[in-house]
Amino acid sequence: MSPRRTTETPRAGRRPGGPDTRGEILEAARKSFADKGFTATSIRAVAREAGVDAALVHHYFDSKDELFIESMALPVDPRDLAATVLDGPREEIGRRIATVFLGVWESPDGQQRMRAIFRSMVGSEAVARAMREGITQLILQPVSKALGAPDAELRVSLVATQLIGMAMVRYLIELEPVASADLQTLIDRLAPVLQHHLTG
Amino acid sequence: MSPRRTTETPRAGRRPGGPDTRGEILEAARKSFADKGFTATSIRAVAREAGVDAALVHHYFDSKDELFIESMALPVDPRDLAATVLDGPREEIGRRIATVFLGVWESPDGQQRMRAIFRSMVGSEAVARAMREGITQLILQPVSKALGAPDAELRVSLVATQLIGMAMVRYLIELEPVASADLQTLIDRLAPVLQHHLTG
Repeated sequence: MSPRRTTETPRAGRRPGGPDTRGEILEAARKSFADKGFTATSIRAVAREAGVDAALVHHYFDSKDELFIESMALPVDPRDLAATVLDGPREEIGRRIATVFLGVWESPDGQQRMRAIFRSMVGSEAVARAMREGITQLILQPVSKALGAPDAELRVSLVATQLIGMAMVRYLIELEPVASADLQTLIDRLAPVLQHHLTG
Repeated sequence: MSPRRTTETPRAGRRPGGPDTRGEILEAARKSFADKGFTATSIRAVAREAGVDAALVHHYFDSKDELFIESMALPVDPRDLAATVLDGPREEIGRRIATVFLGVWESPDGQQRMRAIFRSMVGSEAVARAMREGITQLILQPVSKALGAPDAELRVSLVATQLIGMAMVRYLIELEPVASADLQTLIDRLAPVLQHHLTG
């Protein structure tokens, strides 16, 4: 991401970008993603919702993807996750996925954000839909395409079941002994199962 | 809880109370399981909380286990689940678990109750603790003991990660294509993975 200018000449009829403009755009984006979902939300619609010009939204955010990542407070860019997972030997993809996924959850900030995201998804169908659509387009579809198997989308969503369940059990329900197992043990246990879901 | 009228004059022996006594006992049990957890809750403590004699609680519920199952509105008795899973060839245990677990979720009443339970667990740490303790004692420990491997508890809790994740993805987040996959496909995909977690 390139550094952005912080001042802009607003067009007539639009509110100028005040000190909290970025926050207001994010708030409008959150609302739009929850109300309409990821697919139906556009930069233009978020601008309208925030009462600013679309160019001002572009001034702060490169793309809709970035608006989604920031407004949902994702602890990591899912496009980077997809790239990391795909970069390396196919027969070790299960291990890479386990390592990358648990790595996000093991960082204190990542864990806090992911917990909040899980709670919102379970508590609100609108947030669940927005997350479902966003994650599908930013990570599941690219990984499925790269895998290329005819049932790749099913395989990738089965990986999601194992990962989301691990997160639920270890970090939200805190069921033992998974909750306090050491990280390497969990990676070793998950790797072959994720590999089986994808290529077995 | 405010002092309550006890027109039912509880005494030792089988005496039904008023029309709502059973519901009041369940309410007291829910509160106790959430406040103190499963382990620290007793029939006696629930009776005290409900303002009735312990014998009256026993009149409605055989045991603390049953109080837990009823007050948490579990759609199925976890002790029956454990028995079904353990009854049969060890090399098909993964398939039996997948079939039994998805069977509970596929029934309309089961799905409604399980959704509510998941939402409560994620929304409240107290409910998560009560469920964690109850499920550990009623299903995970008996199955672990029957398996007999030195790492049986870890293996069984890994099975829980896969099952809970499947439930989250299919029934709560509704991520495709898992959300609309046919039941037999999901059983076929889960069976070898659950088997691997348990005996691989």
